[in-house]
Amino acid sequence: MSLGVGVIGAGIMGADHARIIREETADAHLVGVADADLARAERAAAGARAVTDGMALIGAGDVDAVIVASPDPTHAPLTLAAIAAGKPVLCEKPLAVTPEDCLRIAEAEAKAGRKLVHTGFMRRFDPAYGELKAAIDGGGLGPVRLLHCLHRNQYVPGWFQPQMAITNSFVHEIDVCRWLLGAEFVAATVIPSTSDAYDPLGDPLLIVLETDAGALVSTEVSMNAEYGYHVHAEAVCARGTVAMAEPARTLTRTDGARRSGYPVNWIPRFADAYRIQARAWVAAIGQGSVDAQAADVWDGAVATILAEQIVEALRTRRRVALELPPRPQ
Amino acid sequence: MSLGVGVIGAGIMGADHARIIREETADAHLVGVADADLARAERAAAGARAVTDGMALIGAGDVDAVIVASPDPTHAPLTLAAIAAGKPVLCEKPLAVTPEDCLRIAEAEAKAGRKLVHTGFMRRFDPAYGELKAAIDGGGLGPVRLLHCLHRNQYVPGWFQPQMAITNSFVHEIDVCRWLLGAEFVAATVIPSTSDAYDPLGDPLLIVLETDAGALVSTEVSMNAEYGYHVHAEAVCARGTVAMAEPARTLTRTDGARRSGYPVNWIPRFADAYRIQARAWVAAIGQGSVDAQAADVWDGAVATILAEQIVEALRTRRRVALELPPRPQ
Amino acid sequence: MSLGVGVIGAGIMGADHARIIREETADAHLVGVADADLARAERAAAGARAVTDGMALIGAGDVDAVIVASPDPTHAPLTLAAIAAGKPVLCEKPLAVTPEDCLRIAEAEAKAGRKLVHTGFMRRFDPAYGELKAAIDGGGLGPVRLLHCLHRNQYVPGWFQPQMAITNSFVHEIDVCRWLLGAEFVAATVIPSTSDAYDPLGDPLLIVLETDAGALVSTEVSMNAEYGYHVHAEAVCARGTVAMAEPARTLTRTDGARRSGYPVNWIPRFADAYRIQARAWVAAIGQGSVDAQAADVWDGAVATILAEQIVEALRTRRRVALELPPRPQ
Amino acid sequence: MSLGVGVIGAGIMGADHARIIREETADAHLVGVADADLARAERAAAGARAVTDGMALIGAGDVDAVIVASPDPTHAPLTLAAIAAGKPVLCEKPLAVTPEDCLRIAEAEAKAGRKLVHTGFMRRFDPAYGELKAAIDGGGLGPVRLLHCLHRNQYVPGWFQPQMAITNSFVHEIDVCRWLLGAEFVAATVIPSTSDAYDPLGDPLLIVLETDAGALVSTEVSMNAEYGYHVHAEAVCARGTVAMAEPARTLTRTDGARRSGYPVNWIPRFADAYRIQARAWVAAIGQGSVDAQAADVWDGAVATILAEQIVEALRTRRRVALELPPRPQ
Ligand SMILES: [Mg+2]
Ligand SMILES: [Mg+2]
Ligand SMILES: [Mg+2]
Ligand SMILES: [Mg+2]
Repeated sequence: MSLGVGVIGAGIMGADHARIIREETADAHLVGVADADLARAERAAAGARAVTDGMALIGAGDVDAVIVASPDPTHAPLTLAAIAAGKPVLCEKPLAVTPEDCLRIAEAEAKAGRKLVHTGFMRRFDPAYGELKAAIDGGGLGPVRLLHCLHRNQYVPGWFQPQMAITNSFVHEIDVCRWLLGAEFVAATVIPSTSDAYDPLGDPLLIVLETDAGALVSTEVSMNAEYGYHVHAEAVCARGTVAMAEPARTLTRTDGARRSGYPVNWIPRFADAYRIQARAWVAAIGQGSVDAQAADVWDGAVATILAEQIVEALRTRRRVALELPPRPQ
Repeated sequence: MSLGVGVIGAGIMGADHARIIREETADAHLVGVADADLARAERAAAGARAVTDGMALIGAGDVDAVIVASPDPTHAPLTLAAIAAGKPVLCEKPLAVTPEDCLRIAEAEAKAGRKLVHTGFMRRFDPAYGELKAAIDGGGLGPVRLLHCLHRNQYVPGWFQPQMAITNSFVHEIDVCRWLLGAEFVAATVIPSTSDAYDPLGDPLLIVLETDAGALVSTEVSMNAEYGYHVHAEAVCARGTVAMAEPARTLTRTDGARRSGYPVNWIPRFADAYRIQARAWVAAIGQGSVDAQAADVWDGAVATILAEQIVEALRTRRRVALELPPRPQ
Repeated sequence: MSLGVGVIGAGIMGADHARIIREETADAHLVGVADADLARAERAAAGARAVTDGMALIGAGDVDAVIVASPDPTHAPLTLAAIAAGKPVLCEKPLAVTPEDCLRIAEAEAKAGRKLVHTGFMRRFDPAYGELKAAIDGGGLGPVRLLHCLHRNQYVPGWFQPQMAITNSFVHEIDVCRWLLGAEFVAATVIPSTSDAYDPLGDPLLIVLETDAGALVSTEVSMNAEYGYHVHAEAVCARGTVAMAEPARTLTRTDGARRSGYPVNWIPRFADAYRIQARAWVAAIGQGSVDAQAADVWDGAVATILAEQIVEALRTRRRVALELPPRPQ
Repeated sequence: MSLGVGVIGAGIMGADHARIIREETADAHLVGVADADLARAERAAAGARAVTDGMALIGAGDVDAVIVASPDPTHAPLTLAAIAAGKPVLCEKPLAVTPEDCLRIAEAEAKAGRKLVHTGFMRRFDPAYGELKAAIDGGGLGPVRLLHCLHRNQYVPGWFQPQMAITNSFVHEIDVCRWLLGAEFVAATVIPSTSDAYDPLGDPLLIVLETDAGALVSTEVSMNAEYGYHVHAEAVCARGTVAMAEPARTLTRTDGARRSGYPVNWIPRFADAYRIQARAWVAAIGQGSVDAQAADVWDGAVATILAEQIVEALRTRRRVALELPPRPQ
């Protein structure tokens, strides 16, 4: 029995989610795509229904589950509507823009009495991150002492604000490092580089998180790395380290050098992760739950809550103690 | 409209093909699996039909297309039966064990008047080989002068015969290098290493093919490489070279060394290729043809025909001129 | 005219300095070695004079220049004696254990009216660091925003104290990063990892320095990395990054993995640096000065002075403003 | 007691040998340089004697040993003169241009009753080749089955003739692979690539040698690789493989790619080898012999003798049995 999926948002990510459901997900089919721009919805729907009203798509009888990939401020109302309709929802990060909305969603799901929300932190399904986690959990390397991360974007648009390096980019490290380490963060220090006069953002940021187990996560978040999109992680453990390999499949030797390439953004880098995530999401719905490996509603809430506090650490230039509210039951 | 697929053979490859159709191929579903061992067929079918008679599965009304992954000698009769039934068939390599049977299949398809046969040389769908081909075809590197290949198996069973290094393993290089170079092979030289007293096979073989364009393909075929399964290729062109990167996603530093791993056999190495091939196969059937990138019936025939002549080059230790019969029209 | 060199200290480093002067330095010869343990001095002297009194060796008429590689607390008095004798001296790091002694040495050299002191921060002569500096100074990469460093020791003896990770190990990064960046450090933050219950030291330390140009230097200093001795640096610049390659010359494929090795300690890793440093030291003496690339007396003093303040940053767990006294004229 | 060295030939290699003796070889000093071009000799001498007559330099009383780096046809008469004078000689490859002259030199040394000739196959002193040999000789990898070599020159001048790819370039592989394997070659097959219409040379050559132990050496010899000078080797053994790492010390990330560089020719690539060779040569002279690791007179003769026969394999395009005359006693 094939799962009928409605996708809300037909931008880059929404269109890709629609394509993945159509082409790469065996037990699901695309029912329709909603976008305020109907032509864009039609292109993404590729023959399935195209509508402008996301709420109506959530309510449609042939829509069994929903993917929310619309602009960030709409994530909360759409996800709440899906919960109200009793329909599983894969909500792109962020789950919501504010901690308050995140908690509201978590409460709604708790009241609904079953897990419905999968927050789209797709890195958890990336094969390279998966190998890192397997190496850490395998135990042969001993406890993690320190996790080095690089999060480099090729460039960002002019309207990008410094705190978005945290709320939009680093939020991925918040989630995936919590998952890798199986620990909570208790403190944050943010130190911006300001050496490059051409860049008003203070770029990169060096962000150091401390876990409740005493481990560190040190991340360079670069908004204008120029050479490409590059995500990297190395776990420094008691008996050794484990790190991602370079992402390239081929090496070219020309003009005096050996070269391997970087993708221009996250979409080619995490193509496998999006595909695998979609299959895991559909399979878990078949079991009446949310995939055990996925970021659930609480993981989504924690990422937004901590990101806000880490922005404060950037503003104050002081070590900030990180705090989480109680999880709604 | 979902394509109904029957899989014949429930060994390692057949079971994997069945799984891919079930789980990873959006527009197709698994109708049934045939295997002389019914319990094995049932495990691979995972709820779909399990039968012992492959011919009956080909004839079944709900089977729209067939994957042949049974023992090599059965490939020819099963593929001929699929053609006779007018059903598209993905036949695992080899298309047939003898040149004669290959030609018989090519003739049958020619008479059928449409392309039905996709020979399962899955490397053509491997992303790393795809990048090599794109780099070569892009033209920036100039014409290919030499292609270095490694084909290393971790070990082979005791019953393995020396010529199988060519007919079973190197046959992959025959096909994928013809495809990479867009050229035909005109001569072969085979030089076996015999230095390792523990190995009666003469292992590795060094096989040098010459193309009609004057380029060389030099391949080490190792049957007992011990350290793992390792396939590699580097194209040496007029302006530079392009090569596969190491296949690992992570690097571990322990015990005095940095390490990256190799798979134990071809299945993890070519998991992407099998998945992408299955999708391309199903999509092309929807268009009434065989995927343009796939090995078609003639490519399958050429691989078997040349492999036999290259075995002769090994036996005689002389440079052998390679010859192809006319393609059946 | 060959330079007569006396080496004080016949431990690992002293013996190696003696060997380098004997075997690898064309315009200098080893006159003698001093060590409290005469047998050890004799082994290092390998036919040259062996004595127990370092001060006497400094005074000897056939000793034109001195290498100080004795225990750290003796560096200051021996270096002062060399200055008093008007003899050039290569003093192993640290120049002196206390800031006060460093300043005393700098004043003595200033009074002597010519440069006599080369502080043995050998990394400045390492070819890999040299390529990093050339890439940075070349300007094609734009200004440095951030410098990532790894300083991993395989293990440290039981008597090792946490602050020695800074005063003994990290002091190398203090010097070499000042040299790479051509900038002074103005602030330090130290965050220790405490996740590994088996290690009381708080290991690794994450040390973040800020330069007067607004760039950052982020260093992991690990005392018990277990897998080997590993020093690494990557400069993140406005147009790209430049990093050290892995230090191995060969790669081995066995047992399912490709491996490249790490040295057990700094001696093989920096063998080239020590050799090249010795030649530069001798050549500069021939010109009546100290090598322009070397750490001079003030660089040696700065390293000790800053290390002490960075230890304070570890103790207080607060961002510490770094300050330098005026340089003695 | 410092060894007085005379260098004959002040071209690129001769000048570099002179510099190495002056600057990097502790127990030897440069007495003089001979070159038909006196100005060139003076530049290389850098203060030592400059002369035009190499024979006179060999005879000079203060010359204890000679380095021959003059044009190839002069190697034989100069080396014979050094032997006649009883003076140790490091003769750049080739020892002589013809097998006959090589044998004449070997006979002269045999009559002299002591080892005087070191043939300058410097790769034996390259640290990467040294690690390969140590790995092979260590035995942990089992017997060598196959050795893959790359010998890529960036470009060659217009007057370069095809056979020079063998007599000038590949001759290095002949020597270093004999040394690595501790075996003699018994057969050769040469297959040229002719695909690149712009290159009349037939480039690259694929050369396959067979050893008396049944192992293979497969070498790509490229004269116009364009991207740089690149020498590589991988030994395929019964239990695994060992290969050279990439030669770069740093990696740059810019413009969408990670890059590591190649040298433009053999001089930077083998700078360490030349320096270490010079020290070994001088040290062995101190012991009254030729360095045990070096190519001696017979190794030099074998390289020239086999190169001539391998040229024949190229001309005839047939497998050629390789034969050595008896070694003069
Ligand atoms: Mg978004
Ligand atoms: Mg098969
Ligand atoms: Mg010391
Ligand atoms: Mg020459």
